[in-house]
Amino acid sequence: MFGLNSENPIDFIFDIHSTTTNMGLTLIVDNDDLFSLQLAAYLSSINSEIKVYSFGDLYPSPNLLPLRALAQSSLCVEVGAVAQGVLNADIFLKTEALVYAILDYLEKYNTGEIPSKQNTLILYKYIEAVYFPRNEHGEIQAMVHPQLEFKDYQALHPNDPMLLTLNGETIPYKGESIVYPTFINEAAHYEKGMAMCLTQKHQITI
Amino acid sequence: MFGLNSENPIDFIFDIHSTTTNMGLTLIVDNDDLFSLQLAAYLSSINSEIKVYSFGDLYPSPNLLPLRALAQSSLCVEVGAVAQGVLNADIFLKTEALVYAILDYLEKYNTGEIPSKQNTLILYKYIEAVYFPRNEHGEIQAMVHPQLEFKDYQALHPNDPMLLTLNGETIPYKGESIVYPTFINEAAHYEKGMAMCLTQKHQITI
Repeated sequence: MFGLNSENPIDFIFDIHSTTTNMGLTLIVDNDDLFSLQLAAYLSSINSEIKVYSFGDLYPSPNLLPLRALAQSSLCVEVGAVAQGVLNADIFLKTEALVYAILDYLEKYNTGEIPSKQNTLILYKYIEAVYFPRNEHGEIQAMVHPQLEFKDYQALHPNDPMLLTLNGETIPYKGESIVYPTFINEAAHYEKGMAMCLTQKHQITI
Repeated sequence: MFGLNSENPIDFIFDIHSTTTNMGLTLIVDNDDLFSLQLAAYLSSINSEIKVYSFGDLYPSPNLLPLRALAQSSLCVEVGAVAQGVLNADIFLKTEALVYAILDYLEKYNTGEIPSKQNTLILYKYIEAVYFPRNEHGEIQAMVHPQLEFKDYQALHPNDPMLLTLNGETIPYKGESIVYPTFINEAAHYEKGMAMCLTQKHQITI
């Protein structure tokens, strides 16, 4: 049983972030958090816009995911694209509906009326980060390529344009297999010089 | 003659701002600045994406336009939509091309090779600001209506949806004539509770 009456003071926690990237409604889960995976599978079954994302163990800054330490089970909600300090009505309404759907699920879980379980889920698993090239002063020397801007979760093939240098040179994606970029041009990642994350798309069985 | 050799230390000044609104490439001019009007007319004749905007004398915060005080003639360039702290390659390249076009015009003006003069110009003239409704604590109680989001410079007709309250009520535009909103959902205007500016579209002869 989850909630205030449980022996564990915090069983489940979720927080909500806006993002400047075009990640729509994204749920960030832990690979090994079965409850959140089932919740994410349920939510994406009732709203096909929802994407489910996992940093796994490869992400360079695990300390950025403090929810893990606070509760037995957790979920981050990322919504975008929206600029900092702006209320976008369309995104606000979709986020509100998502929050209610999460709360309804928890309520039904607690009363034993859990919606029929979804056993499969499309999961975008983080594999690596792409950083902007820098000059000797540490200044960023490239931008996200215009053809990739706002294309979060869309397939990036080997040799597709990825970055564009300030001199106008295209830097292509040099990997050997198709990847699905996320966090493309996230304002909060500039301080780390991170241009995007690359993921692999998996259909997983929970 | 404009430039460093002139008797006046600053004859012409322009600055560049990004905006979270979908104002594309906007030139903000003063109604009575003939040189800037002619420059704006020239620039919009070579790039049809460019919009020309004037605050006129009606804007509530004339102190926000300090360029007026610094130089005989001035121009503000607004580019968007782009979130704060993000480098959008498409917008960057368009802005760069615009800056070169301005510098080329100044060079030709100084050498007497001014490009053939454009005598007409579409000018969006500020008429009033629209503010978000607030509650008794001063908190904003509405958002830009989803149907109006990113529709800068598009005609808004009487009774078209303008704002959406947090309770889900639509607040329509109650004016009696067609207007052209600008600065729709500008992050920097939230501190003033400003939702957008309304303009009238004029074809003017310089």
